[in-house]
Amino acid sequence: MEPRAGESLQDRYAPANRCFGCGPANEKGLRIKSFVDGAEVVAEWRPEPHHQAFEGMLNGGICGALLDCHSNWAAAEHLRKKAGLDAPPCTVTADFHVVLKRPTPMDVPLQLRARVVESQEDRAVVEATLEARGRITATCRGTFVAVKEGHPAYRRW
Amino acid sequence: MEPRAGESLQDRYAPANRCFGCGPANEKGLRIKSFVDGAEVVAEWRPEPHHQAFEGMLNGGICGALLDCHSNWAAAEHLRKKAGLDAPPCTVTADFHVVLKRPTPMDVPLQLRARVVESQEDRAVVEATLEARGRITATCRGTFVAVKEGHPAYRRW
Repeated sequence: MEPRAGESLQDRYAPANRCFGCGPANEKGLRIKSFVDGAEVVAEWRPEPHHQAFEGMLNGGICGALLDCHSNWAAAEHLRKKAGLDAPPCTVTADFHVVLKRPTPMDVPLQLRARVVESQEDRAVVEATLEARGRITATCRGTFVAVKEGHPAYRRW
Repeated sequence: MEPRAGESLQDRYAPANRCFGCGPANEKGLRIKSFVDGAEVVAEWRPEPHHQAFEGMLNGGICGALLDCHSNWAAAEHLRKKAGLDAPPCTVTADFHVVLKRPTPMDVPLQLRARVVESQEDRAVVEATLEARGRITATCRGTFVAVKEGHPAYRRW
């Protein structure tokens, strides 16, 4: 089923998920909410003070965690639509490459954008950006793979 | 000054640092402790339940955050020694590429290892691994740069 208007992919397909980056049920997690917007998947997120690298600037590992989970959802939703499924396959990250272009500030909402640039039946390559005040602060390119039966992540959403 | 025996790089050089990944003073952070061990920098770390991707397996973004901060300290200590400084320069991540080779379990201590493979006066390329039960679960290659006066991170340690 398509997400309802205004409903995030996480809330639609995995409300009980406890993933650090994107689990709606993880109270100590980043709890990103990713929405389909045409050919992109977008999210807005605000840092908490303990996500800092130093005062006022976001830790690069958190930048990576945001980009990784957001991109993974872009891949999962893409593979769902491509296969005509009701729910997305459970996808895991094979690799992700983060480029930190400038410091990411902590005092404004941050925007995530992701787009599938290549895909096969069971995997997608996603390019994503993190922005603050309309400027890209970090980019990411990653590969996300639908796991098969027998993988520990199979049907864990 | 060299770290004292049994003292981590973070506790030696940046005890008040609040970085999410490696700040000793961030109670909600990962608080990795990195130690020089010959040509490598090593750390041991235990996940908390909210760091999961799904039950029993570590989130890939957290794998990346561990590898990023640990590698950054390997770079900083390498540049310190190379320049004959008392304290490391403040280095920031330019990019990091994480390959997740297999799921990382949550129920055992994890080992981080990092090694500088290339360096110039102001930057180092670091290769690092994350291991569980003696098997590598993730690898990382990143570039870390000593910031100059005027950068927001300058002298923030």
